[in-house]
Amino acid sequence: MFRNLMPHYEILTASDLELIEKGWQRIAHEIGIQFDHPEALRLFEAAGQRVESDVVHLDPEFMMAQLALAPSEFHLRARNPEHSVILGGDHMVFTPVSGPPFVRIGDVRRDGTLADYELFAKLTQHFEQLDIPTMPMIEANDRPLDSRHLDMLFAAFTLTDKPVFTSALSTANAQDSVRMAEIVFGGAPIAAPPDADGRPTCSIMSIVNVNSPLRYDSRMLEALLVYAAAGQAVVVTPFLLMGAMAPVSTVAALAQQTAEALAGIVLMQLVRPGTPAVMGSFLSTIDMQSGSPAFGGPESAQGLYASGQLARRYKLPWRAGGGSLTSSQTVDAQAAAESFNTLKAAFLAGANLVVQSAGWLESGLVSCPEKLVVDIEALRVLRQQFTPLVVDEEALAFEAHDEVRHGGHFLGAEHTMTRFRTCFYRPLVSSTENYERWVSKGSRDAATRAGEIWRAAVDAYTEPAMDEATRADLLAFVDRRRTELGD
Amino acid sequence: MFRNLMPHYEILTASDLELIEKGWQRIAHEIGIQFDHPEALRLFEAAGQRVESDVVHLDPEFMMAQLALAPSEFHLRARNPEHSVILGGDHMVFTPVSGPPFVRIGDVRRDGTLADYELFAKLTQHFEQLDIPTMPMIEANDRPLDSRHLDMLFAAFTLTDKPVFTSALSTANAQDSVRMAEIVFGGAPIAAPPDADGRPTCSIMSIVNVNSPLRYDSRMLEALLVYAAAGQAVVVTPFLLMGAMAPVSTVAALAQQTAEALAGIVLMQLVRPGTPAVMGSFLSTIDMQSGSPAFGGPESAQGLYASGQLARRYKLPWRAGGGSLTSSQTVDAQAAAESFNTLKAAFLAGANLVVQSAGWLESGLVSCPEKLVVDIEALRVLRQQFTPLVVDEEALAFEAHDEVRHGGHFLGAEHTMTRFRTCFYRPLVSSTENYERWVSKGSRDAATRAGEIWRAAVDAYTEPAMDEATRADLLAFVDRRRTELGD
Repeated sequence: MFRNLMPHYEILTASDLELIEKGWQRIAHEIGIQFDHPEALRLFEAAGQRVESDVVHLDPEFMMAQLALAPSEFHLRARNPEHSVILGGDHMVFTPVSGPPFVRIGDVRRDGTLADYELFAKLTQHFEQLDIPTMPMIEANDRPLDSRHLDMLFAAFTLTDKPVFTSALSTANAQDSVRMAEIVFGGAPIAAPPDADGRPTCSIMSIVNVNSPLRYDSRMLEALLVYAAAGQAVVVTPFLLMGAMAPVSTVAALAQQTAEALAGIVLMQLVRPGTPAVMGSFLSTIDMQSGSPAFGGPESAQGLYASGQLARRYKLPWRAGGGSLTSSQTVDAQAAAESFNTLKAAFLAGANLVVQSAGWLESGLVSCPEKLVVDIEALRVLRQQFTPLVVDEEALAFEAHDEVRHGGHFLGAEHTMTRFRTCFYRPLVSSTENYERWVSKGSRDAATRAGEIWRAAVDAYTEPAMDEATRADLLAFVDRRRTELGD
Repeated sequence: MFRNLMPHYEILTASDLELIEKGWQRIAHEIGIQFDHPEALRLFEAAGQRVESDVVHLDPEFMMAQLALAPSEFHLRARNPEHSVILGGDHMVFTPVSGPPFVRIGDVRRDGTLADYELFAKLTQHFEQLDIPTMPMIEANDRPLDSRHLDMLFAAFTLTDKPVFTSALSTANAQDSVRMAEIVFGGAPIAAPPDADGRPTCSIMSIVNVNSPLRYDSRMLEALLVYAAAGQAVVVTPFLLMGAMAPVSTVAALAQQTAEALAGIVLMQLVRPGTPAVMGSFLSTIDMQSGSPAFGGPESAQGLYASGQLARRYKLPWRAGGGSLTSSQTVDAQAAAESFNTLKAAFLAGANLVVQSAGWLESGLVSCPEKLVVDIEALRVLRQQFTPLVVDEEALAFEAHDEVRHGGHFLGAEHTMTRFRTCFYRPLVSSTENYERWVSKGSRDAATRAGEIWRAAVDAYTEPAMDEATRADLLAFVDRRRTELGD
């Protein structure tokens, strides 16, 4: 997996961080966080926190003590151990798009289906730049609402052998996710022993979004409680569009994001001390003229740099809200510029988990395989860009200069000949063809070439092996639960 | 003008910098730099340097002493003083595309003309994100080769009132540039007195490219000598495509770039101590399969971060080789991602001068007004992104949280209402329109919208005033020189 060994880009001073810390603590304590679930309120009250109606007023010192229980790094298993990942430290984990109801393929935009979900699962398995299929990479609108999580989980567990983001929309969804993981990993409990380096190990991970501002709803809390009880990881994510769910100030939104995310992680520690958690961030703006969300802009990038500094202050693995975010409706220059801006910011900020790294369009309403390929190129470029330069005598290559000297050419130099295969980045979709050749091959733009690349990837895809008994057990579970859910 | 007050992104350690310093000094001393001009050789010899044939073996201590004469900041005048710029420190200066023979407008690619040059001059005047028209923004292929610099300089001086990059292709070109500047600035000499803060002030600036590796040809040296004698600024730029003009190692190319650029700046100090100079960088790769140049990749970004560190070590203003570089043939996702990568790297690296910030396509063969608009959007985003966050009680906006509290909405909050006009970045070409509205308006992608924007900019353009006598003198000079040059 990729390790980001480059310096972090940090924009806040120590006193800035202290001020934001006082800010989030004041929010958590004075205004408090609303938890729409009796068990959550009971746990906070039992821990000595002031609960008024459904609002918990959190004591900052208590929060800091609880946060210290959460691991700074943890291990997320894959059924193929080669695909297991580590969350935290200098490790970076990437997931494709998550959440859209619509799919765009070429110029056609339509409702997503289970077949589309399976397509994205195959592409996630195919591209080594993607570590984890998400739930849902595209909504399986052709399957019944109550049971479609079973179909998508089955696809994610069987069409990939990577770690799986599982479902968190309800108690039933979360419990089904735990049961299916138990089958895949060979029986309960799925809270595995620590890894060889002593990191806590879990088998599934899910995203729980806060209902910002300052509120957790019952469905999300149900899932959070199920995952925490099972010792499984949760990415606790305030989704903040400034102007809608947060004030129109990046600093105010950062304080709110921190109060919200940490409150959820504290709750997880009350359920089961030491449960792995990821501090989520997802900060953007709305267009103040139309009210539409806007992505890929300057506020998001600054928010990412600051979020990284805050997460490191609290020694928590953290999620960069979105990798390749854009408001664009199609795979054009806007989509690429906005996506590259946010994705590069996630690398600069030292994010541990980058959700929405590939395939996002239209402010998150659309999953698009051409966009996924364009984003994979960006991930490949950035992985190489965030691999440190080695500066030594060999890299200085004085002998190459001495060989070529003045006004010469390095193409035929011995230094070049022994290195030409691996010396530079090699693009996936980008073209360096001269104009005549580009025209002769049909004047295909990057989106068109990306379409050819994902189709070739699907052709090259082979389903990873799963033993027949496990697969049969999974299928039996899905069939039984689908019937129980009335579908 | 824009000041970049954000932290620099620095990737080299102190010992890395020392090793690269030893590397470039060894190149300059042991292999030496070839200067194809007797006056240059005479100056170096007179200064005690070892000259063998046309190769100067430069003593590192001598070079460091000469470099200390070059100003760390200088002032470049515009005929409209509001458009004057400062090179160095935390100031950033941006120019549009420079050099292409072809223009692309919409889907039509053809030879550039003087009318195209005038179009780019108008767009440079129109967009406040561009500080300096370049020579040539597009080649005026419909004008005679020997005298077209006169036509383009006349257009740059009259259609804009910004500082002007002038011509450096020969002694005649350089001398004509100086003469025209003398007319524009009201008479010789154009070496103006220092500005109010004591910065050396010049009236024109030009780019001199090194004939890498390790060679300055006679035409470029002629121009460099003319500019230095007149106390005018030169951007000394090694244009290094690794694999062609430099070894296939970023570290080796950085050592070469430094040796080459500093040797030229030393020569300028020998001509006239204290002459303003900009340390140039332009580092990319070639596709090792086709031999075509490749832009916007990971090597260029790393090269920019390192170049900034080196320039600051030698206390020189520095040029980021290209801002918006791409190999793409059209204004597509590839063009935008590659350009954004390099442009953002220039901001992160703290570049003082960003040439090729807007309008570049097809590895520098094509100037494109739609691309220029897409790049202007990137410049606008990055300027805001590289403006520091103010972290204070007002920014924390506790009162906004206290007003909205749990599960509410900030759109109607008082905090929002008083700030909604200016709180967020407002895009130029990017769209946040919902899908239905986007379709109803013609499903226009970013390139199509950019075409509408530059045409509107041309419609809105008004030529800046120039007194009639100056204009008549300029025109008379151009006519006379055109005749003298036989055109």
